[in-house]
Amino acid sequence: MLVLTQGDPAGIGPEITAKAWQANRQHGPGFVFLGAPELLQPFVPVQTVAAPAEAATIFPHALPVLPLELATPALAGQPDSRNAPSVIESIARAVALVQQGQASAVVTNPISKEVVQKTGFAHPGHTSYLAELCNVPGQDVMMLAGPSLRVVPVTVHVALRQAIQQLSADLIIRTARTVAQGLRRDFALPSPRIAVAGLNPHAGENGLMGTEEQNIILPAIRTLQAEGLNITGPYPPDTLFTPHARAKYDVALCMYHDQGLIPLKTLDMAEGVNVTLGLPIIRTSPDHGTAFDIAGSNSADPSSLLAALRLAATLVHNRKNTP
Amino acid sequence: MLVLTQGDPAGIGPEITAKAWQANRQHGPGFVFLGAPELLQPFVPVQTVAAPAEAATIFPHALPVLPLELATPALAGQPDSRNAPSVIESIARAVALVQQGQASAVVTNPISKEVVQKTGFAHPGHTSYLAELCNVPGQDVMMLAGPSLRVVPVTVHVALRQAIQQLSADLIIRTARTVAQGLRRDFALPSPRIAVAGLNPHAGENGLMGTEEQNIILPAIRTLQAEGLNITGPYPPDTLFTPHARAKYDVALCMYHDQGLIPLKTLDMAEGVNVTLGLPIIRTSPDHGTAFDIAGSNSADPSSLLAALRLAATLVHNRKNTP
Repeated sequence: MLVLTQGDPAGIGPEITAKAWQANRQHGPGFVFLGAPELLQPFVPVQTVAAPAEAATIFPHALPVLPLELATPALAGQPDSRNAPSVIESIARAVALVQQGQASAVVTNPISKEVVQKTGFAHPGHTSYLAELCNVPGQDVMMLAGPSLRVVPVTVHVALRQAIQQLSADLIIRTARTVAQGLRRDFALPSPRIAVAGLNPHAGENGLMGTEEQNIILPAIRTLQAEGLNITGPYPPDTLFTPHARAKYDVALCMYHDQGLIPLKTLDMAEGVNVTLGLPIIRTSPDHGTAFDIAGSNSADPSSLLAALRLAATLVHNRKNTP
Repeated sequence: MLVLTQGDPAGIGPEITAKAWQANRQHGPGFVFLGAPELLQPFVPVQTVAAPAEAATIFPHALPVLPLELATPALAGQPDSRNAPSVIESIARAVALVQQGQASAVVTNPISKEVVQKTGFAHPGHTSYLAELCNVPGQDVMMLAGPSLRVVPVTVHVALRQAIQQLSADLIIRTARTVAQGLRRDFALPSPRIAVAGLNPHAGENGLMGTEEQNIILPAIRTLQAEGLNITGPYPPDTLFTPHARAKYDVALCMYHDQGLIPLKTLDMAEGVNVTLGLPIIRTSPDHGTAFDIAGSNSADPSSLLAALRLAATLVHNRKNTP
C-alpha cells in the first residue's frame, strides 16, 4: 500500500488527493492518506484507519486516512505556519511506515518551503529531509520522469552562477552512480544508458565557448565509463532532447536545473513526476507546488499526482522483481 | 526573387539546395543560387543567369544560378579553406543584390567558422558579417522561429559563465527594441507580445536563487513597458515553453543560448529557422550547420532550408504590406 502525505493543508494537495482517489478507486493503485481527514471530507467519502494494512479493502469505497490533527483549521489558499508541524509529521510518519514494512512507498503532496521553514525546518524541501530520515544525508538525487523523457540535474535549487561554481567531476560521478543504481534497481533497466549534457552552448565547441566540458565533464564520464557505466557525452544541450536524440538514452544527466527542467516541462508538463533516487525507500511526488493561488477553486489538475502514484507502484513492483 | 548563398561547398548546402528546388519548382517560393554551378549539376538541371530578374521564368525548369568560381574543386565532407573566398563573396554579393533592389531577401546556406576564419574572416559567423555589410554593426539580433515557438537569446555564442557576466539591462533593452521592431515590420504583429525568461531556476524565487531578476531583468522590463512595449516577465524558465504558456506570447526573450535553443529544438527540430533581426535587409537561414559528416551521402534533410525560404518570402510580403 502506497502512503500519500498530507502536504500543505492550504494548498491543492487535498483536492488532487480526492480527485486521484476518484480516478483510482476501481483499478488502483490504492493509497492511504496520512493527514487530517477533514481536508478530504468536502470532496469524497473518507474512512480513518489505524494502519495501512486496513486500507486495501476500504479503498474502493472510501478514501482511507491515517489521521493527523491540525493545529488550526486549514483555509484553502491561506497557508498558516501553525499547521507546519502536521506537514512535517506526515512526512516523518510516512517514511517510518515504509521503513517498518507497513507501506510500500511514499508519495508526497506539495509543501511550501516558506511555511515549514518558519517553524525551524532546516531543509530546502522534501528531498534532503527524506535523506536525513533515511540516514543517508546528502545522497538524495532528484530525477524528473515523464512519458517522453527522464532528466537528472546535478546541481539543483541554486542560482545559475552558483550552479556553475558547484559543478565538479566528483559531483557528476556521485550523481551518475546513484542514477545508474536507481535505474537498475527500480526501473527495470539492467544497463541504463546515461547521456550527459555539456554546460555550454554547443558543449563548448572544443573549448571555444567554455572549458568545463574538457576539464570537468569529460574526465567524469571517462571515470564512469571505466567503472562499466553505459554513459556518453558531453552532448550539445540544445539537440539532446529531440525525438531522435531521446531514443538513444534512458536518462539525461543535466548540469543545471533548467537545462533538464525546460525540456521535461516543455514535453511532459502535466505528467512529470519527481522521483528521489539514492534513498533506501521509494519516493515519488507530483512535479508542481502547492498552487495556493488556485487552491479552493476546484481547478487543480491531478495528472501529475496520478502519474506519481502509478510510477511509485511500478517502482515497488520492479524492486521486488530485481534479483 | 530570393537569393540563396552558396555556403561551404563541401557541406550539405548543395544537396539541400537541389532538394529545395525540387520541392519548390512548381509552387515556389523561387530562388536564385549564388555559387558554383558545378556543385548542383550532379543533382538537378542548372541554368546560369546574369541577374536575379532572369530567374523567375527559369525556376520551374532549372535551378537558376548566379555563377561563382571555386579556387579548387569541392569534395563533399572535405572542407578546403582555399574555397573560403567564394563562400564569403557569395554572402557579400547576395547582400549587395538586395541593397540594390535586384533581390528581395537573402537566405544563407551553412558555413563553417573554422574554414572561413583560416582566411582572416574575423566574424564568429554570418550574422555579424551581415550587420557590417549593412552598415549596422552590433545591431544584429538572432531569432529562432519554428512552427511552435519563437525565441531570441540575448547572449549567444559564449560560455555560460560569460553569458551571465554579459547580461545587462542595457543589452536586454536594446535586444527587445530590435525584436519588437522586427516583429512589427516583418511578422505582421502590430503589438508583439514579448515574454522575458528569468536567468535562474524559478526566476530566482524572490532572490533566494539569484538576484539578476531583481537587479537586471525586471528594471529592463519596466523601462521597456514605459516605452509602450507589450513585454512581461521575468518568468520561471522551466514553465515558459509549455503549450499553455506559449499561447500567451509571440516571442520569448531568453537570457542565454540554450535557454532558448533547447525548447526550440525540442519542439521544432526539423523546421526551425534562423532569422536575423536588426538589419535593413531580410535574412533567414536554416538552423543547422554544414554537417560535413553526412555531406555526399544524399541523406541531408532540406526541411529547415525549405522553412527558411518560405519564411523569407513571407517576411518580404509582410514588409511590403506594413504601413
